[in-house]
Amino acid sequence: MVSLLPLLLAPSALAGEGMWEPRQLPALASELRAAGHAGDPTLLADLHQAPLGAIVSLGGCTASFVSERGLLATNRHCVLGMAQRAQRPGERLGTDGFYAPTEADERPTGAVTRITVTQGFEDVTATVVGKLSPRLEDRARHDAIDTAIKRLVASCERAADTRCRVAAFEEGLRYVLVRSLELRDVRLVMVPPDMVGSYGDEVDNWHWPRHAGDFAFLRAYGSRDGKPADPDPGNVPWQPAHRLEVSRRGVGPGDFVMIAGFPGRTERWRTAAELAGEVRTLQDRLVEGGWAFDLLSEAIRTDPTAAAALTSSRSGIGNGVSAARGSLESFTRTGAVARVAERDAAIDAWVAADPARASRLAAPIAELRALVQKHEGTRARDLHLSWLGRSDLLSTARSLYRWSRERQRPDAQRRSGYQERDVARARAGLESLDSGLHLATDRAVVQRALLALLALPAGQQPPELMAWLRATTPAPGADAAALAEGALTRLYTRPALADTAARLALFEAAPAAFRASPDGFLSLAVALGPWDEAREAEADAEAGALARVRPAFAEALRAVQPGRAADANSTLRVSFGNVKGYSPREAITYAPQTTVAGLAAKAGPWPFAAPRDLLAAISAGRWGPWADPALGTVVVDFLSDVDLTGGNSGSPTLDGKGRLVGLAFDTNYEGIASDWVFDPAVSRGIHVDVRYILWYLDAVLQADRLVRELGIEPEL
Amino acid sequence: MVSLLPLLLAPSALAGEGMWEPRQLPALASELRAAGHAGDPTLLADLHQAPLGAIVSLGGCTASFVSERGLLATNRHCVLGMAQRAQRPGERLGTDGFYAPTEADERPTGAVTRITVTQGFEDVTATVVGKLSPRLEDRARHDAIDTAIKRLVASCERAADTRCRVAAFEEGLRYVLVRSLELRDVRLVMVPPDMVGSYGDEVDNWHWPRHAGDFAFLRAYGSRDGKPADPDPGNVPWQPAHRLEVSRRGVGPGDFVMIAGFPGRTERWRTAAELAGEVRTLQDRLVEGGWAFDLLSEAIRTDPTAAAALTSSRSGIGNGVSAARGSLESFTRTGAVARVAERDAAIDAWVAADPARASRLAAPIAELRALVQKHEGTRARDLHLSWLGRSDLLSTARSLYRWSRERQRPDAQRRSGYQERDVARARAGLESLDSGLHLATDRAVVQRALLALLALPAGQQPPELMAWLRATTPAPGADAAALAEGALTRLYTRPALADTAARLALFEAAPAAFRASPDGFLSLAVALGPWDEAREAEADAEAGALARVRPAFAEALRAVQPGRAADANSTLRVSFGNVKGYSPREAITYAPQTTVAGLAAKAGPWPFAAPRDLLAAISAGRWGPWADPALGTVVVDFLSDVDLTGGNSGSPTLDGKGRLVGLAFDTNYEGIASDWVFDPAVSRGIHVDVRYILWYLDAVLQADRLVRELGIEPEL
Repeated sequence: MVSLLPLLLAPSALAGEGMWEPRQLPALASELRAAGHAGDPTLLADLHQAPLGAIVSLGGCTASFVSERGLLATNRHCVLGMAQRAQRPGERLGTDGFYAPTEADERPTGAVTRITVTQGFEDVTATVVGKLSPRLEDRARHDAIDTAIKRLVASCERAADTRCRVAAFEEGLRYVLVRSLELRDVRLVMVPPDMVGSYGDEVDNWHWPRHAGDFAFLRAYGSRDGKPADPDPGNVPWQPAHRLEVSRRGVGPGDFVMIAGFPGRTERWRTAAELAGEVRTLQDRLVEGGWAFDLLSEAIRTDPTAAAALTSSRSGIGNGVSAARGSLESFTRTGAVARVAERDAAIDAWVAADPARASRLAAPIAELRALVQKHEGTRARDLHLSWLGRSDLLSTARSLYRWSRERQRPDAQRRSGYQERDVARARAGLESLDSGLHLATDRAVVQRALLALLALPAGQQPPELMAWLRATTPAPGADAAALAEGALTRLYTRPALADTAARLALFEAAPAAFRASPDGFLSLAVALGPWDEAREAEADAEAGALARVRPAFAEALRAVQPGRAADANSTLRVSFGNVKGYSPREAITYAPQTTVAGLAAKAGPWPFAAPRDLLAAISAGRWGPWADPALGTVVVDFLSDVDLTGGNSGSPTLDGKGRLVGLAFDTNYEGIASDWVFDPAVSRGIHVDVRYILWYLDAVLQADRLVRELGIEPEL
Repeated sequence: MVSLLPLLLAPSALAGEGMWEPRQLPALASELRAAGHAGDPTLLADLHQAPLGAIVSLGGCTASFVSERGLLATNRHCVLGMAQRAQRPGERLGTDGFYAPTEADERPTGAVTRITVTQGFEDVTATVVGKLSPRLEDRARHDAIDTAIKRLVASCERAADTRCRVAAFEEGLRYVLVRSLELRDVRLVMVPPDMVGSYGDEVDNWHWPRHAGDFAFLRAYGSRDGKPADPDPGNVPWQPAHRLEVSRRGVGPGDFVMIAGFPGRTERWRTAAELAGEVRTLQDRLVEGGWAFDLLSEAIRTDPTAAAALTSSRSGIGNGVSAARGSLESFTRTGAVARVAERDAAIDAWVAADPARASRLAAPIAELRALVQKHEGTRARDLHLSWLGRSDLLSTARSLYRWSRERQRPDAQRRSGYQERDVARARAGLESLDSGLHLATDRAVVQRALLALLALPAGQQPPELMAWLRATTPAPGADAAALAEGALTRLYTRPALADTAARLALFEAAPAAFRASPDGFLSLAVALGPWDEAREAEADAEAGALARVRPAFAEALRAVQPGRAADANSTLRVSFGNVKGYSPREAITYAPQTTVAGLAAKAGPWPFAAPRDLLAAISAGRWGPWADPALGTVVVDFLSDVDLTGGNSGSPTLDGKGRLVGLAFDTNYEGIASDWVFDPAVSRGIHVDVRYILWYLDAVLQADRLVRELGIEPEL
C-alpha cells in the first residue's frame, strides 16, 4: 500500500532539513545522537509525555506549558492580537508591554483565543480516498473527499472539548486525522514592550545579528473541576498533563537543539511550475504589501486611535514584504528555479524509465503542471479581488451572508467553516472585530481594489461587481472614478457592520434580510454571492483534480529523493540541529550568538529605542547566573540550523535533554526561501535565549512571581 | 633642541597606527621584524634604493615604477582626470576603459599632469622659525615664515627639473625641506572599465567586502637624452633609477605588508575643540555634498555631454559624502570626542604638574583652543562662500585677477601659488579647464550659493558681494530671487572664460583690463578682490598665531603620548602591518580576502554590471598561476591593518621582501574616522591584489605586452 511506504522506509535526515512527524523520530535515532541528542528518541514520538505533551498550538503560532499552573511561553509577536483584545481604553499593551503582578491581574484575551493540545494521530487515507473510483469527476471527487473528512471530524468531535481535523500529507498520499484537546480561556500574563520584543523592528527584521526579546507569557484557565471551559472569571489555572523544564544554563555554539511546534506550510513537494508562479506572486506582494505597509504606517502616525487597531496588522504586512524580498533574492542567489526544474527533469526521467510507471504517472504529472498554470491569465484580477477581500467590513458581510445561506442546509452538507462546530469561533470573531478595525484604512483598501478592478479590460471584470457599481451610481456615462467614489460613499456612510450588536444580529438573520437591506456592504455581499459561489465551484473542481494528480507527482518525488519529510501542514512536528552561525556571503561570517552588549551598542532612535530600564540594567552589568560562561555576559538571541517556518513561532527550543533553552521566533533572511528550497548552508532559525528571558524577568522587570513559577529562584 | 627630540626618542609602534617618516624605520626594526618584515630596515630609510626610490607622487595620489621603461602602477580612481584629458571626442575612457596595445598608442594626459620623485629631506626648522622673536606680531610672524620658506624653495628649485616644498611636522615643531625630481610627460597606458575598477560603486564604496579592480597603468616619458621634459611626441620612456619587483605569489591572512606613499593629511595632533568643529563640518558636508551629488548625477543622466566633464567630480563628491557619514558614525560609536577630550585633559594635567612648564605652555594652549573656535559664528556664511568658490568659472576669474595683481610685484614678494614657479602649472590648468566644465552645473552651484548668502542676516553678508549684486540688478526693491536671477543672467550670458583662448589671454592681462571688462565673472572677481584680500590677511594673521601656539600643544602631546608618528602632510611615509580581517559589530566577522567567485555572485544591474569578458573568464575558471593556493581561485581585494589616508591611493603594497603584492585604494567604513582617532580594532586599508591585476591583464585583457613588461610571462 502506497500510504504505508514512509513507515517502512527509514527517513535519512538531510543536514538540517526536516520537519519530522513525531512517529518518524525513533527511526532517526542515529542522526539525533550524531547531532548531540542525549535522550531516548522513542520518548520524542510520544504525545503523552514531555516534551511533546507540553506543546500547544495557538492557531498560527506555537506555545508550551512551562509550569504546573498552565503558564505558557511563546513569542511576543504571537500575542499581539490577544494583547489588543486584552487592553483597556487608553492602554497600548503591545507597545508599552504588560505584566500581571498577581494571577488576579491576568487579562482575558477574548473568546476568540483558543489553544489546542494534540492528543493523537490516526491514518485515515483508506477512509478518505481509498474507495474513490479513478473515473469520478473532479467536483464529485472533491465533494466525496470533503464529505468523508467532515464525517470523520464530526465523529471525532463528539468527545467533549475536542477539536479534530484531517490533514493531507505528502500531497495526498496520506490523510491523517488529528485529535486535539481545546482550551478556551487564555489570559495574558506578561508581554515586554515593543522596543524589547521587536527591538530593531523592520530594520533588523530577518537580518542577523538580531537582538529581539520576542517572548511573552500566557496562562490557560479551566473550570474548577479541571475541564476546559469558556472564558469565565471563576475559572482556575489549568493543570497541564505535561510541562517543560526550564534550563538555567542555555546552550552554546555547536550544541544540540530541537524545536517542537506547528509549522504551517512548506512547498518543497511542489512542481517547478508552481515555484515559477510563486516568484510572480512574490513580485506582486512586494508592490502591494509595500503600499499597504505605507498606508497603515501613515494611519498610525497621524491618527492616535489607529495604533491600537493596526499595529499588529502592520507588523504582519511588513514581515510579508521583507519575506517576499528575501525570498526573491534567495531564489535568485541559489538558482532555485533552475534547481527545482532539474529535479523535475529527474522525476520525468525516472517516470519515463519504466513503461508501466510511465503509463500510470506521466499523464497525471502533465495534468498537474497544466492545472497550476491555469490562473496565469487572471493573475491581475485575482490579485485585486484578494485586495477587496482585505476589507474587514466586506469580508464580514460576505461571511455573514454566507452563514445565512449555509444555515438553510443540514449541518453535514454545509461548506467547511460554516458548520455548527464553527459557530462559537465565528461569533467570537464578530465580537472582537472592532479591536482591529480602522474605517479610514478599510476604505483606502477598498478604494485601491475598486480602482484597479475598474481599470481591467472589461472582459476580466467580475460582472456581478460591475452591475452593483452601476446600480449604486446610475448616472449614465459615470467613469471609473465616479463609480468608485459612489461605491465608497455608499459603503462607508454609517456601515451597519461597524456596530457589534448589528453584526451579531445579522449572524442569526435569514438570507432575505440581507437581500432587503439598503446597507452598502450587505448589498455588495449579496451582489457578489453568485460570483463567490461560482469561484468556489471552480476551486472545488480544481481541488478534486489536484487530489487526483498530486499523489502521482509525490510518488515520483519520493522515489527520486527518498527520506524527505512531508511538507509542513500545521500538524505537530519536530526539527533538530545545532547552534550554528553561517556565512551570508563571501568574506562575511556570522557568529551564532548576540549579547546585551550588542543590544546596547545599537541603541538610538526608533527602532532601536531600547527602554531606559533595560539599558540601565545592562549598564549595571549584574548578570547573576544568566551570563554565558564563554562570553561573560547575557546572550540575547542565537542561531541554529533547525528547520522551521511560519507557525513554528513560539516553539520551545530544547537542549539535548529536553529542557527549554529558548524560543524560536524567526528564520533568517538568507534562508527565507527555505519553504520552497532548503539550503543547509544558510537556512537558520533564530531563537531568543532563555537566559535573556530569565535575566529580563529577574533584573529588569523584577517579576519574581514569574521567575519562581518557572522553577527558578530570582537572583537579582 | 626641541626639533631633534623625535630623533632621540625611538618611536614605539602602536598596533597598526603610524605613517612613519622613512628616517624613523631603522629605529622600528624590532616592530618590523615582529610584524614579519624580512629585509633590512635601514634600506627602508633610503630614498635612493628600492622600494622608496621607486615611489612617486601624482599630487593627491601615489604611484610606483614597476618597469625599467617608466611604467607606473596606481589606482584607476587616481587617473580618471588624466583619462578625461586623454580621451578623444566620443570616447569615454573612464567608463569604457583603455589599453594601448603598443607604446605608440599610449595617450598624453596633458601638461597639467606632473609626477614627483622624492630626492631628499632637510631639517630647516632653524631657518624657518629659529630666529623669530616671541614678540613678533602674528601677521608679521606669518610673513616671516612665508618669506623664509619661499627663499628655501627658490634656492632649492634652482636645480633643473626640481620641485621643492617645506613641510611642517608635528604642528610646526619641525620644518623639513623636501626636494623632488619632477617628470612632466605622463601617458595613459591602461585603465580598466568602470565596472571593473569601481565595481559596486557607491553601494560598495568603503564597505567591505569589496571587489573593485582599482588599478591602472601610466608611463613617464622624458627627453631622448634622459632628462625630464615637457610633453612631446618625440619623448622616450623614462628610465627610473629604481623600480619594484612584482610578486607572482601575493600574500595571505596574517602576512606582513607595508605601503609607501604620500598620505595627505591626518588630524591626530589636533585639539578636542577642533574635533568638535570637525563633527559640525561633517554634518554640513552630508547635506551639501548630498545636494551636489544629486545635481551632478541628474546632469550626467540627462545630458550626454555631462558624463565626460562630471564623472570624476561626482565620484569625488560621493566619496566625500560617504566619508562624512562614516566618520560621524565612527565618532559616535567610538566615543571619539569624549576620548580626545580625555586626552586633552591629561595634557592639561601634565602641563599643570610643573610650574615652569605651566608658565611656558598653558597660555599658548588656551589661546590655541580659543583660535580654533573663532569661526563658529560665521560657519554658515563661510560654508556658502565655499560653495561659491566651487564654480569653476568664478574660481578661474578670481585666480586670473589675482595673477594680474601679483605679477606687479617682484617674484619673491608674491603670494605662494602666484610665483613664476607656478606659471606653467597654472597655464596648464587654464588649458584643460574645459575637460571638467559643465555650464549648467556651474550655474546651479552659483545659484544655490547666492540664494543662501542672500538669506543670511544682513550683518553677515559680504558687503562687496551685495554691492555687486545690487549694481547688477539696480531695480529698486529687487528681492533675493531677483538679485540672484539678475546675477546669474549676467554671469552665464556668453561668459568670456568659457573660451580657452580668452582665458589664456587674460592670464597675461593687467588688472586694469579686468576692471574695464563688462564680463560678469571678471567684474565679480574684481568686486570680490578686497573681500578676498581682507580674508587672506585675517587668515595670515591667524596662521601666524597658530604657528606660535600649536607647537606648545604638540610638545605636551608628545610628552603625554610619546612615540606618536607625525600627522600626514603629503610627504613620503611608510606604514606597515598585516593582512587582517575585523569585526564591524557584534556577531559579524569579515575575512580579509575576496575572490572572483564573490565578484561573480554579486553581478547584476549597475553598479554590479560586471563586463561580459570578465564574467566569461571567471566562468571559464582558468586561473593559471594567479590562484590563491588556500582559496583555489583569484583573490580580488584584501584588507590589512596598515595606517593610510587620502593621498595613499595607488600606494604599492609590499610584502616582507619588498615585492609588489597589491595597490592600496581605500580605507574601510568602520575605520573612516582614523584621520582623527585611529582605532586598531577596526581601521583597515583595502588593497587590490596583484594576482587579480595579473590575471585580469593576462586572462581577460590579454595584455601580453604589459604582463611581460612587469617581468612575468603571460600564461593564459
